[in-house]
Amino acid sequence: VSVTAPRGFRAGGTWAGVKPTGSPDLAMVATAGPAGPAAGVFTRSRAPAAPVQVSRAHLRATGGRAAAVVINSGNANAATGPAGLATAEAVCAAAAGALGVAPEEVLVCSTGIIGVPLPQDLLVGAVPGLAAGLSDGPRAAEEAARAILTTDTVPKQAMASGSGFSVGAMAKGAAMLQPDMATMLAVLTTDASAGPAELATALGEAVEASFNRITVDGCTSTNDTVLLISSQAGPRPGPGELERALGEVCAELAEQMVADAEGGTKVARVTVRGASDDRAALRAARRVANSPLVKCSLHGGDPYWGRVLSELATAGVELRPERVSISYGGIEVCHGGQAAAHDAARVASHLAGRRVEVVADLGLGPGEASVLTCDLSPAYIDENMRTS
Amino acid sequence: VSVTAPRGFRAGGTWAGVKPTGSPDLAMVATAGPAGPAAGVFTRSRAPAAPVQVSRAHLRATGGRAAAVVINSGNANAATGPAGLATAEAVCAAAAGALGVAPEEVLVCSTGIIGVPLPQDLLVGAVPGLAAGLSDGPRAAEEAARAILTTDTVPKQAMASGSGFSVGAMAKGAAMLQPDMATMLAVLTTDASAGPAELATALGEAVEASFNRITVDGCTSTNDTVLLISSQAGPRPGPGELERALGEVCAELAEQMVADAEGGTKVARVTVRGASDDRAALRAARRVANSPLVKCSLHGGDPYWGRVLSELATAGVELRPERVSISYGGIEVCHGGQAAAHDAARVASHLAGRRVEVVADLGLGPGEASVLTCDLSPAYIDENMRTS
Repeated sequence: VSVTAPRGFRAGGTWAGVKPTGSPDLAMVATAGPAGPAAGVFTRSRAPAAPVQVSRAHLRATGGRAAAVVINSGNANAATGPAGLATAEAVCAAAAGALGVAPEEVLVCSTGIIGVPLPQDLLVGAVPGLAAGLSDGPRAAEEAARAILTTDTVPKQAMASGSGFSVGAMAKGAAMLQPDMATMLAVLTTDASAGPAELATALGEAVEASFNRITVDGCTSTNDTVLLISSQAGPRPGPGELERALGEVCAELAEQMVADAEGGTKVARVTVRGASDDRAALRAARRVANSPLVKCSLHGGDPYWGRVLSELATAGVELRPERVSISYGGIEVCHGGQAAAHDAARVASHLAGRRVEVVADLGLGPGEASVLTCDLSPAYIDENMRTS
Repeated sequence: VSVTAPRGFRAGGTWAGVKPTGSPDLAMVATAGPAGPAAGVFTRSRAPAAPVQVSRAHLRATGGRAAAVVINSGNANAATGPAGLATAEAVCAAAAGALGVAPEEVLVCSTGIIGVPLPQDLLVGAVPGLAAGLSDGPRAAEEAARAILTTDTVPKQAMASGSGFSVGAMAKGAAMLQPDMATMLAVLTTDASAGPAELATALGEAVEASFNRITVDGCTSTNDTVLLISSQAGPRPGPGELERALGEVCAELAEQMVADAEGGTKVARVTVRGASDDRAALRAARRVANSPLVKCSLHGGDPYWGRVLSELATAGVELRPERVSISYGGIEVCHGGQAAAHDAARVASHLAGRRVEVVADLGLGPGEASVLTCDLSPAYIDENMRTS
């Protein structure tokens, strides 16, 4: 169920020495044959990390083709200046040499601490051995999926099938998951035969509906990257088939990321409906989903809908409080902007679970959107108060 | 040093029974004579609490005059519908009756839990005794300042003097302090003789430069209110004198609020300079000051400037990473968008203190702004995970 599920891909993971713990920190995914069509979606940060700059440039140079992706964890190679760019290029060159492809056909991702030089020699030294050991088996795919993790506690993999083709994927999440992605990396593979432009369009749609609808803390990172490569080992997908399979895989990975968010103990789906339009609904849902106070309530299993209403009312969207209703797990707790009589035990029981549904109906129009979020627990602070 | 410092004011606080703990929960500040000129700044929430709606209407009805403010804590009287409005009006009427003024000359504030009916009988029953016991001494002012607190740990009072006049104030803060105020109430008094329009202008400026430049968690509440009443017992202030005194008092209260934020153990001033303009600087400073990751780093005393850069880069303002420098306590840790050699022990020592200075220079233009924030500690979560 991962990047080697589609035909024509090999993967592997190893320890290059970036992580002092000895945990795997270098992964590679490569086509079995020559470079295939590829597409990427990148962070909108105005200080994109070196690997983001290099991968963007490589996709541009090749017109959307790639033969491999090299990913290191433990160091983001962000805020590292020209030396960081040189390191990212050197990693691509080393992989290209080992695989017998052009350097521009190699894409690169990094995730981890910002502002610390990435030790080029460690990566360049480890790449040939990693390339030599690539395999198309599920164990190799899992090794790759493990090698890209930072504070994630479990590897994240997914796959979906179409008529005669499949899509496989691995990802890492943790904190900083928010609209416009954020400290997330995902590598998707497919054997569906489709050109770079088709891949780019389908990937953009899938990302918008999945990774851009999750949030952990409202922070967007310097390194977010989603890459898709096709081996062209299978048939052309039917109309909408590739979109569906990509959407399924991205949605599955997004859910896994929120479930494994730093310090998160619950996953909550915040749905806003009845907004003036979908855009307003999404804006309001994000405001609620990002609210530290709402997230604290979720952590405590406290049905404090007043905070939900308060966030809706400051989201910058049209609101008429007297029309708002709010429910937890389908049980209405607020109606007409005021407390509604309800079965408190049933609400408490829903909020005690791992999965919480919060729905706010603004009563204004047809707009609807959902965002996945997690609760805010002391473990998030423990995780983030010190880098070392 | 509080609301009774200016001539012509009386105050008091008592327990009306809203807070089950028996802590004081009802305060009153009144002019010693007739109603005087008054002004208010209110939350921009689209679901303003009943007392906000009533106070706004009363100021409008009187053309900007007030004789008293009644404030309860423990219940926000927000999301309480028509019954909530009736309760807020009943409280004003009770105070008006006890003080011999018109109901429209009484303003009202509430703070506490949202969405729970405010017990009208308790407040209306307690108002006459409170009114009868009002005093112009400092002890009465402190009783009032204590009665408006929610999760605040200390009362917040301030005063400033002009030529022959003074400004006194009390406030409550805690969580939800953010641009456009947020769960904060402040009552300011002055004996400076100035009309409603002069008061409104001067108050608006003071609020913008103080309460609108602090943040605890980015949440804006349903109840934020800052009120100013003049007893006209003193002279007309000289040009700029009232603005200066109001600014001083509001800045002092803002600082006290951040220092007493829920779970906060440190106060940090985030300054962005070198932005394209002041507006961009403020936007970037708020983004950094509201970042949960930056706030976790502050809690841990960790000089992780990469997160500051990352937030600057997603603040929606112009940024050229290679021009950015970042310092803690005046010690530059990032220069040209990369790590700068520095004395780590001095930085650690600065970050270990209660007061932290973070300065980011974008190197682009003359824009500058500062925002006060606090760290994010597990106590914030403890405080907010359950309402009962």
